[in-house]
Amino acid sequence: MEESALRREDKKVVAVVGAGLVGALNACFFAKRGFEVEVFETREDIRKAKVVKGRSINLALSHRGRTALKHVGMEDKQIVSKGIPMNARMIHSLSGKQSPIPYGKKGQYILSVDRANLNKELLTAAETYPNTKLNFDHKLQDWSAETGLMTFARPHGSKTQTQADLIVGCDGAFSAVRKQFLRRSRFNYSQTYIPHGYMELTMRPRNGEFAMKPNYLHIWPRNTFMMIALPNLDKTFTCTLFMPFEEFEKISTGDEVIEFFQKYFPDAIPLIGAATLRRDYFRLPAQAMVSVKCSPYHIGDKCVLMGDAAHAVVPFYGQGMNAGFEDCIVFDEIMNQFNEDFSAVLPEYSRVRVPDDHAIADLAMYNYVEMINHLILKSYIIRRNKMKCLSVADIPTVFQVTFTRTRYHVAVERWHWQDKVINRGLLLGAVGAAAGGFYLLIKNPPDINKLAITAEKVWNKMAALKTPPSVGA
Amino acid sequence: MEESALRREDKKVVAVVGAGLVGALNACFFAKRGFEVEVFETREDIRKAKVVKGRSINLALSHRGRTALKHVGMEDKQIVSKGIPMNARMIHSLSGKQSPIPYGKKGQYILSVDRANLNKELLTAAETYPNTKLNFDHKLQDWSAETGLMTFARPHGSKTQTQADLIVGCDGAFSAVRKQFLRRSRFNYSQTYIPHGYMELTMRPRNGEFAMKPNYLHIWPRNTFMMIALPNLDKTFTCTLFMPFEEFEKISTGDEVIEFFQKYFPDAIPLIGAATLRRDYFRLPAQAMVSVKCSPYHIGDKCVLMGDAAHAVVPFYGQGMNAGFEDCIVFDEIMNQFNEDFSAVLPEYSRVRVPDDHAIADLAMYNYVEMINHLILKSYIIRRNKMKCLSVADIPTVFQVTFTRTRYHVAVERWHWQDKVINRGLLLGAVGAAAGGFYLLIKNPPDINKLAITAEKVWNKMAALKTPPSVGA
Repeated sequence: MEESALRREDKKVVAVVGAGLVGALNACFFAKRGFEVEVFETREDIRKAKVVKGRSINLALSHRGRTALKHVGMEDKQIVSKGIPMNARMIHSLSGKQSPIPYGKKGQYILSVDRANLNKELLTAAETYPNTKLNFDHKLQDWSAETGLMTFARPHGSKTQTQADLIVGCDGAFSAVRKQFLRRSRFNYSQTYIPHGYMELTMRPRNGEFAMKPNYLHIWPRNTFMMIALPNLDKTFTCTLFMPFEEFEKISTGDEVIEFFQKYFPDAIPLIGAATLRRDYFRLPAQAMVSVKCSPYHIGDKCVLMGDAAHAVVPFYGQGMNAGFEDCIVFDEIMNQFNEDFSAVLPEYSRVRVPDDHAIADLAMYNYVEMINHLILKSYIIRRNKMKCLSVADIPTVFQVTFTRTRYHVAVERWHWQDKVINRGLLLGAVGAAAGGFYLLIKNPPDINKLAITAEKVWNKMAALKTPPSVGA
Repeated sequence: MEESALRREDKKVVAVVGAGLVGALNACFFAKRGFEVEVFETREDIRKAKVVKGRSINLALSHRGRTALKHVGMEDKQIVSKGIPMNARMIHSLSGKQSPIPYGKKGQYILSVDRANLNKELLTAAETYPNTKLNFDHKLQDWSAETGLMTFARPHGSKTQTQADLIVGCDGAFSAVRKQFLRRSRFNYSQTYIPHGYMELTMRPRNGEFAMKPNYLHIWPRNTFMMIALPNLDKTFTCTLFMPFEEFEKISTGDEVIEFFQKYFPDAIPLIGAATLRRDYFRLPAQAMVSVKCSPYHIGDKCVLMGDAAHAVVPFYGQGMNAGFEDCIVFDEIMNQFNEDFSAVLPEYSRVRVPDDHAIADLAMYNYVEMINHLILKSYIIRRNKMKCLSVADIPTVFQVTFTRTRYHVAVERWHWQDKVINRGLLLGAVGAAAGGFYLLIKNPPDINKLAITAEKVWNKMAALKTPPSVGA
């Protein structure tokens, strides 16, 4: 595929464990560098599977993820054209009123993409490199961090062994590769399940068209519950209901489902359809969500974790896949910096990437609490309706996380710094001045995007008032 | 041993995995209730072993641990008589000046006990129950939470299986029982290694007597380092040096050891002996310290975790063993409450005990940061020397944790509440009044124990000013 792919004589073997989104993309990155790439996946090839099990149906692709796809020449053709732009969140009030809140500046959007389709495209892209081999139905049983020898269980009880120079664990939140890490001393690890589960429900097209406005991420915030809906290419929406497990369990009949929706999401009943709701609510039990943090990401010069295997995050910042894809870029950059010397690259990767992945895990958890408790949204709506301004505290963080490659931990530190400044009242003057400006805006019909830009300018002025803590790379 | 032990006809089998301190004590608790108790331990019987490997040599036994021992009739005879009372901390300044800081009221002390001796006594006590069997050289390989069937590896490659009605995982910070828990959904878990390691050094007797005053826990706080020393019955002290791993690694020759001690612990060189220091520093590498938190502690009605398996804590509050021993009392109390019905006892145990064990893990971690950074001790010393008063903020928490069975999480909540009150300045008046009282004390030679009592009274008055948050059981 690329010239470099065939240039080497002493090819090193890179084993990518897991052929999900991050594993398949990573295979492309390593293949592009000319390594002998072997991908091992427990499940069958999803391109041939009749039923694709588990995980969410669609995902929000934003700047970091797109940048990673661009690195392997995949952004535009296969992915962006099949995604649906979402320019804003659309908040559904209990009365059915809909109010948009944009994500960024005018013209900026995130993309709703189909997980299965993206994964298939990535696998096909990886396979076009002649130096890449995909191995399905290979379940990792054991591996050695000293020798790089891996043992896989095959169907019908047989086993097979392979040796690699580098093992890249991209095998998700319940990573088999990570189990070895847990047996080592001084490996920090946490897995935290949140009290909420999620359930997916499909909203079919109406008269051949989307049942709601398509270019939005629809949100129904309801204090301890929340429902969201993302558009799909087939003009359906995938609705996801987030609710504490014990609340899910309280509902055991079709009538109770309808009663619950009538109370909290009345506008969604005709859109999803009462009969569908009655049936689909009981199709699958609510699924758990886990946040995984660990450190370091490597053992010696033979193994490294990336994607959910290193940092599963709760889905409330829309950054899980984007962070995993950015892992591949960061690793690639460090490979350049250290001339592909694994003994230098791996420790540097842990040093650089751990604080960023921990920051996005924390941000996602913070957003979980805020979104579920309705705080951010309330604050947005109150400000929009009463003061006609957006939260200056939140916009810059969301913007940096979603539309730039600002390091996650830098975005968080700036945000903490800003909170401190605000709490200490140092900005009272600036806020007063800004309020004057906003007053003028109330007099004219406010353009939400202009407001966002104004808010960003205020942020920049605030940042100039006092330098945020400096951050080493 | 007890009449109840022989009373039952349909004896249920309780398998205690791990014959360390908590496992051996727990065997006594279950045997006393009349269960058929089987204890399984990976290692050989430490009572017959020539060399006892790993773990610290001595431990601080305080109120909670003693209460648990009393429950099985073991407190006084075998344990307290072989422990050495420590009435206070003794702070060693860089110049060699020693200043005591008492733990509690007059006459209150914690006990320095020998870990190996305590473990041996507990094993022998467990064995005196006719319904208890100790099985050494049994390494747990697998177990089922559904059936209670366990598989153990024996020496020379053989295996054995046993079934139990209840499996009690008391197998320490690296618990084999806990591994099954990690495979289950919605099990929260974290393991955090601190950047410091520890190393033990022995200070031998001088002229047949203790080389330092024996009834103290000696502390050499040195900002990022710290050394402590606990007295042993054979008139030695076990010194423990806490230091970041990279600092340990910087020292690679005997001369560097002496140089380091001359810089930071000059008074300890003649006491330990330069030749001993040069040799013993390199005997074993520095050991890691881990803090483990998880939730819940049970699976179904067949398995429960206790002691370090459920909550390994860093050793800076002297509560690791005490918390583990208190687990046994709490479980025992809940067994009474729910008439030994495991299906009710186990969830209740998780509900009640998790917040307390998490609180002591947090307190120990907080003390690590404070002790290492010298903050608490500095604050104590500054106050003692300048204001002749003790920190009112810390005394009640230490007191409640060390000398009462106040639930750990209640002690922490009171402390947080107090911090909040102090921070908000609501107590300025009360502090002013107290300062007046302390001024009077300066005029007279201050009795440190009286001051502690005064501080406690101030705390009680503070508590009366505003009721701390109420806490459900």
